[in-house]
Amino acid sequence: MGEIRNILFIMCDQLRADYLGCTGHPHIRTPHIDALAKRGVLFSRAYCQAPVCGSSRMSFYTGRYVQSHGASYNGVPLRVGEMTLGDHMRELGRRAGLIGKTHMTADLAGMARLGITRESLPGLLAAEGGFEPWERDDGLHPDAYTSPDLAYNSYLRALGYDGENPWHTHANSGIDEAGNVASGWYLRNSHLPARVHRDHSETAYMTDRAIAKITALGETPWCLHLSYIKPHWPYIAPAPYHDMYGDADIIPANRSEAERQNPHLVVAAFMKHEESVNFADEAKRRRVIPAYMGLITEIDDHMGRLMRFLTDCGRMADTLIIFTSDHGDYLGDHWLGEKELFHEGSVRIPLIIVDPRPEADATRGTVCDRLTESIDLIPTFVDLLGGPAKPHLLEGRSLRPLLEGRKIDGWREFVVSEVDYAWRGARLALNLPPDRTRGYMLLDGRWKYISYDNFRPQLFDLKDDPNELHDLGESAAHGKIRRAMEDRLNGWLRARRNRTTMSHEEIEARTNNYKTRGIYFGVW
Amino acid sequence: MGEIRNILFIMCDQLRADYLGCTGHPHIRTPHIDALAKRGVLFSRAYCQAPVCGSSRMSFYTGRYVQSHGASYNGVPLRVGEMTLGDHMRELGRRAGLIGKTHMTADLAGMARLGITRESLPGLLAAEGGFEPWERDDGLHPDAYTSPDLAYNSYLRALGYDGENPWHTHANSGIDEAGNVASGWYLRNSHLPARVHRDHSETAYMTDRAIAKITALGETPWCLHLSYIKPHWPYIAPAPYHDMYGDADIIPANRSEAERQNPHLVVAAFMKHEESVNFADEAKRRRVIPAYMGLITEIDDHMGRLMRFLTDCGRMADTLIIFTSDHGDYLGDHWLGEKELFHEGSVRIPLIIVDPRPEADATRGTVCDRLTESIDLIPTFVDLLGGPAKPHLLEGRSLRPLLEGRKIDGWREFVVSEVDYAWRGARLALNLPPDRTRGYMLLDGRWKYISYDNFRPQLFDLKDDPNELHDLGESAAHGKIRRAMEDRLNGWLRARRNRTTMSHEEIEARTNNYKTRGIYFGVW
Repeated sequence: MGEIRNILFIMCDQLRADYLGCTGHPHIRTPHIDALAKRGVLFSRAYCQAPVCGSSRMSFYTGRYVQSHGASYNGVPLRVGEMTLGDHMRELGRRAGLIGKTHMTADLAGMARLGITRESLPGLLAAEGGFEPWERDDGLHPDAYTSPDLAYNSYLRALGYDGENPWHTHANSGIDEAGNVASGWYLRNSHLPARVHRDHSETAYMTDRAIAKITALGETPWCLHLSYIKPHWPYIAPAPYHDMYGDADIIPANRSEAERQNPHLVVAAFMKHEESVNFADEAKRRRVIPAYMGLITEIDDHMGRLMRFLTDCGRMADTLIIFTSDHGDYLGDHWLGEKELFHEGSVRIPLIIVDPRPEADATRGTVCDRLTESIDLIPTFVDLLGGPAKPHLLEGRSLRPLLEGRKIDGWREFVVSEVDYAWRGARLALNLPPDRTRGYMLLDGRWKYISYDNFRPQLFDLKDDPNELHDLGESAAHGKIRRAMEDRLNGWLRARRNRTTMSHEEIEARTNNYKTRGIYFGVW
Repeated sequence: MGEIRNILFIMCDQLRADYLGCTGHPHIRTPHIDALAKRGVLFSRAYCQAPVCGSSRMSFYTGRYVQSHGASYNGVPLRVGEMTLGDHMRELGRRAGLIGKTHMTADLAGMARLGITRESLPGLLAAEGGFEPWERDDGLHPDAYTSPDLAYNSYLRALGYDGENPWHTHANSGIDEAGNVASGWYLRNSHLPARVHRDHSETAYMTDRAIAKITALGETPWCLHLSYIKPHWPYIAPAPYHDMYGDADIIPANRSEAERQNPHLVVAAFMKHEESVNFADEAKRRRVIPAYMGLITEIDDHMGRLMRFLTDCGRMADTLIIFTSDHGDYLGDHWLGEKELFHEGSVRIPLIIVDPRPEADATRGTVCDRLTESIDLIPTFVDLLGGPAKPHLLEGRSLRPLLEGRKIDGWREFVVSEVDYAWRGARLALNLPPDRTRGYMLLDGRWKYISYDNFRPQLFDLKDDPNELHDLGESAAHGKIRRAMEDRLNGWLRARRNRTTMSHEEIEARTNNYKTRGIYFGVW
């Protein structure tokens, strides 16, 4: 073992931090992911920068808060020119490529203004969030919008799965009691086995692609983003995962009747969304969660396969491995479904990092409870590969000192996550224009403060109320805390890195250097 | 008269708002600019977004605050992809070009990542702040860095002005008492006549270029940014402008001894800059200001020439004319030289708009005291040319209703201007890292509040203290005002337009439309 040569950046989608064996789920079986945690560091307080796919990922991929990169929701194009993980990796001699999902939307208008297209490599990279699209597949293919060229569909068809969109009709559908194809888009069908052999599921397929690509790359140093759509909906798993779990394995929803009495207006509007109404129904919840858990155990099995492959081909010794998710899933907690808001089930993410270097031996198998953020990954990668810190651009912190178990003075004081619900029914219910729909969560470990445009803030005390059942946003006794948290938010807002085109080092070199450049102003 | 066909966007550099006849200077002669004010609207409370060339201009050219475009000082590249005035104009069928200065620095690293160069038209536009560079000339050419291809130098040489850099040795130098060439870079030489005939000065030359270009454009609709370097330093004017003004014409410096006793630490550090020390010396101030005034009257003469040309060629009837400046000049006010901080002499700008449409007849010759900002120009142009408002991107307001004298409910409550002094001696004196050097001015008409990183704020009451001689930043009686202004600043910070790649209209169309796209989530 020695230097890190490659980076395997594995992401699941919508995987709650607490749905792994190693993070404390009492019933789920994830032995291979748990083994990763034993060989690396499990970060127990890792947070995504936005509890929604696209925005969270743009933060992972740029190393910047949503406030800085601007792609505040799914479908909002990442503005052309934003520097990405791939750009940083290429500077350090690594090819950076994607297998799976990014949920990145290209800024086609910006590209057109600059006269660039996917035909050129830089144009392709700009359109793909900085990754070489070794296999781009966002994993959601409604019949009306499925590309006829979708590789996974071609793969399924070659295996004999018929139809125009076997992604839907096989990998994400079952057969109902009446013998009809039953779409996994509907929660009611989550208990059915998907009409695909476990070896041909999306999760299996993407793992195959990763193994093939790593093999093909040979001795070329790489950064591979292996990005699974699961356990994200459609919540439907192939046998045997579809009925591996039952009622007894489901942890109860974290919610109280009191929460429904006088909820914050934004939360109340989200509670009325269809997904929240359905997940509030315990019977429906029990239909879905076993499938969700099965999909996780399925991923775990493929983690086992992937790790065996890396060991066999010798890459385990020189590859940094990250296992994480873009956000969580309410699963009925707090009478909510899906994600987007800031309770722990939604905003906290699993994060395991396996650092093969001897310097990291001291921390293997440990749990680190420092506050970490998804934007910390790029600084960690750059640091481990010997690149410059770039604090003018990258807003996270390198986790290297934590991986090495070094003593640190002064870690971050709080994490920030953001929401923009302009696209949701909640905005219509609250009768808001599209530019009054932002919210910011600040969590300092104990206090979780959420500041919304137009509405009062929320406040939770995670020490006395770890289940976040008591909103102190109007508590007279907590005015001072709220004020202090709002001050922190304001300090954070003004400290965003917008001067991205000049490094601190260049500023130092240019400070007060007018005369050396022949510029004499104010000189008598 | 009817529709607006062309836009003539004239900018001076470092022209104080109060150094024109029409804005109240008791002695300066600017009859042609005053005539523009008589034919249009004079905005008496117009502010730049940053009292420094580059950042102010990037706000003029993007329609966005510095916090949003990120080019927080001279030399900071405007990040590739930022949409500019030129882009908005081209969408509306106008060619947009530059004659003169932009102080725009290209984001060459960003361009390289995207694989674009100046060889392509989009690449050239990206490198030139969105303008077709009909003649780019930033007007500052120290000998060591002067391009051998500088068109103005070729022009001077063809006229017989000798040397490698006649911009310096002729147009910006005089002959001192000993018969030696005396550089205009030095304030001590400001009283000398520049070694160039008035017809060959930079101001004359750029005006010539504009007239030739407008002639050449014929019936093609255009937006021409005619951007003079003067009255910016080197403060040296050709005859007869060099001695047109004397001691009796100089308005006294706006300063008090008390200001030097216990100044704000940032202001104190700026007071120690060489330009401040020199302008604090009344004798030196008296050497420079007559040249500064002469340069303004010189511009005025060329405004007369340019307007006659427009009248003669018929363009006066269909051309919107803007006359403004990027920022002011302390000229010794408050014991400061140059600009960058937020006293009125530095941050307030002249702004005159002549709208040829009959709808604007009612306001001709009036003074509008609404708070306006440099970022209002693009929205005004787009509005007058019939384009969409783009509030997701453009942060200013269309001035059209003010030009038409319409009754308006609810104008902006405050203007914002920003500073980033990371590059200045003040940062070293204050021992700050390059990312703790920002300041934000909020002015609501009466209260001018300035919030600095790391230091206490400043507060001025322009009603009771129009000369800004009493800093209320520590006044116990004004804590509530300061708190209210800080709250406004925080509201402003969180409302910055960072979601620039999707219009409000598109958001409305996409709100809650999942099912129409075949995306069924949370559906039973």
